[in-house]
Amino acid sequence: MMLLYHLWLSPFCRKVRLALGEKQLPFKMQVEKVWERRDDFLALNPTGECPVLVDEDGNRICGSQVICEYLDEMYGARPLLGTGAIERAEVRRLIDWFDRKFYAEVGVNLVEEKIMKRFLGLGEPSSSAIRAGGRNLHIHLAYIDWLVDRRTWLAGEEMTLADLTAAAHLSTVDYLGDVPWGDHSEAKDWYARVKSRPSFRPVLADHIPGAPPPRHYADLDF
Amino acid sequence: MMLLYHLWLSPFCRKVRLALGEKQLPFKMQVEKVWERRDDFLALNPTGECPVLVDEDGNRICGSQVICEYLDEMYGARPLLGTGAIERAEVRRLIDWFDRKFYAEVGVNLVEEKIMKRFLGLGEPSSSAIRAGGRNLHIHLAYIDWLVDRRTWLAGEEMTLADLTAAAHLSTVDYLGDVPWGDHSEAKDWYARVKSRPSFRPVLADHIPGAPPPRHYADLDF
Repeated sequence: MMLLYHLWLSPFCRKVRLALGEKQLPFKMQVEKVWERRDDFLALNPTGECPVLVDEDGNRICGSQVICEYLDEMYGARPLLGTGAIERAEVRRLIDWFDRKFYAEVGVNLVEEKIMKRFLGLGEPSSSAIRAGGRNLHIHLAYIDWLVDRRTWLAGEEMTLADLTAAAHLSTVDYLGDVPWGDHSEAKDWYARVKSRPSFRPVLADHIPGAPPPRHYADLDF
Repeated sequence: MMLLYHLWLSPFCRKVRLALGEKQLPFKMQVEKVWERRDDFLALNPTGECPVLVDEDGNRICGSQVICEYLDEMYGARPLLGTGAIERAEVRRLIDWFDRKFYAEVGVNLVEEKIMKRFLGLGEPSSSAIRAGGRNLHIHLAYIDWLVDRRTWLAGEEMTLADLTAAAHLSTVDYLGDVPWGDHSEAKDWYARVKSRPSFRPVLADHIPGAPPPRHYADLDF
């Protein structure tokens, strides 16, 4: 069975879990405390980061987008990156938007500040970072509103890895109860559709000891 | 003809120029002063970043990796991402290494500090950033030494986009004369091989007014 080295509340690991779920591929998960910089793990991935997937043949694949491209190439049924070069370019553009821009502008300011700092004993969260994250979050939700006002899913008429990626990132913020869904009804409707997919169920069951999610987190009718 | 919106000394734009060169695709370039946040450009790419490629059919593709994946899908001869899913995963792992890790640890500290700050009138470069960039550069060059001690090219026996990406990033640092080639002979031999490719010639001819490159920059026998 495949093995995924992961961290709880990492949007990049969640993205891979969702992709594996959509492909209906069974896998085991192992938490990797990346801050311990374990030698065996650094030999697997010299960046020392999660996610890393070890497939059934022992091949190790590093990094969420590299893993997802690999899965789509190896398990072609239900393509997650779309069909056709132009469509895939749009899917990849949006993936990059959330993996890089959303994560830097929202995820780092909210999830990293509130959770990682606490767990690693790095002090109190910065209130200015949290304020900035909240402001930026509105801009990203407005972009989702705008996209799904014009398209069924973020990148077009089919559900793709762009939706899974955006939802993976949003889900970590939602775990903290920080998403102002009431101000963004179109984004909310879209998120409800992603959230109701079977691939999302394990992510909604995540429960970090000492930091439980708010009640609406796992609720499909939030 | 294709049109590439670019910035001088952007490693991401250089990577696309090299990929287009390897594919022998003719293209025009247009400098986009991204800091002016021109409305027409934001309509093309809402992140406001370069590179953006507009192909002959008017499709716009945003972001260096998205563009390169698109080019490899559309123009399959001389595949740049390698053949086979495992090989492509290794190529993409190394691309991510240089685009994300090298850029954050070296490029931002050296090229952004020394060039972009000056051109945008943002003050003097930070000497601590420059020292950190120099230290980090040694680690990355040692990683290249290690890879090409074991393989012909960075990702294996074939020249791939991993080599072009690494060389694009290094070339911007080399433009400033900041690469300690004397301490890394294997990385130097590898760079000499990439540098001698016809696709590299236009990049070696770059000459930014007010910031000329050192003499060895364009020299194939440096």
